[in-house]
Amino acid sequence: MPPPLPVTFVAGDVGPWRILRNAPYKGDGLPVAERLLVLEGSQSRPPPAAAWTLSGTTSNGRYINHGEQDALRARQAGLGRPEARLAALIPIRKTDRWWDMPQDERRAVFEERSHHIGIGMEYISAVARRLYHCRDLGGPFDFLTWFEYPPEAAEAFEEMVARLRATEEWDYVDLELDIRLIRET
Amino acid sequence: MPPPLPVTFVAGDVGPWRILRNAPYKGDGLPVAERLLVLEGSQSRPPPAAAWTLSGTTSNGRYINHGEQDALRARQAGLGRPEARLAALIPIRKTDRWWDMPQDERRAVFEERSHHIGIGMEYISAVARRLYHCRDLGGPFDFLTWFEYPPEAAEAFEEMVARLRATEEWDYVDLELDIRLIRET
Repeated sequence: MPPPLPVTFVAGDVGPWRILRNAPYKGDGLPVAERLLVLEGSQSRPPPAAAWTLSGTTSNGRYINHGEQDALRARQAGLGRPEARLAALIPIRKTDRWWDMPQDERRAVFEERSHHIGIGMEYISAVARRLYHCRDLGGPFDFLTWFEYPPEAAEAFEEMVARLRATEEWDYVDLELDIRLIRET
Repeated sequence: MPPPLPVTFVAGDVGPWRILRNAPYKGDGLPVAERLLVLEGSQSRPPPAAAWTLSGTTSNGRYINHGEQDALRARQAGLGRPEARLAALIPIRKTDRWWDMPQDERRAVFEERSHHIGIGMEYISAVARRLYHCRDLGGPFDFLTWFEYPPEAAEAFEEMVARLRATEEWDYVDLELDIRLIRET
């Protein structure tokens, strides 16, 4: 696993990704913008005219166990596939009640009862995924999840999102945006 | 549990804590300084003349289970006890191998084999402790642990540190400082 990689998503007038939809799913939304730029690494500075920015960092897994990690790594698609022209950026925040639960209770809700890893595993060879953590960074969200998929997997992607939102884990999500994009370069 | 509380430790000429010792335990050390100021909250800005600063944030527990959390909360001393005039700041970094392990393997090393929580529990009513996370913040360390204890608990504190350093978990620590302080206000 590579070291933590910081990222800043910059919404504004520039970037390879055109924003197709920028809607709140729970709570308030973010201002309208045309395009999205994804800046990786700590040296990257957002352009001054951004409509909004969201920052996070890759980090270690918090719930995944040995067998799940092996299975995920064997199956998962990588970012940047030429055919994966569609993307989604889904920032979420979880409730204080979630964060106050000890590790074993969070794991039980996350996987034993909500099957977050199990559901994701069914789609991970078509839908590339990278999770950025931001709770320790102090922004409004706890996680930013970035997905890339080809148009043929669009229906499967919607199904995955709907299944996850129907889980017990999602009872602990109190702020969620749903941003959809298409790559134009 | 309160929301994440950012902190910056500022070493320089000011602050209520006089630095008694500032030694590397593994790896390189930090410059010499007289005093330490502890700035809490995101608004706090370090004075410009600092010898060094270290930043982190409180966060959710990563390993503790339900029973351990209840026991810890029932027993633990709070920060700021008038009699707890001694303090220690122990920044550590763990190896890539540690961070690449899935959750169940890290937990097994941390508690089932190294008894980190169990050892800490024996001292936690005399030695107040607060853990700040900083791996996701991108600094040189992964954790900054702050301890406060009265002079009568100094021997017990040294024993606790020595026991933890002798565990399997500490095989995964590759950078560690040991800073000792006394409160003079």
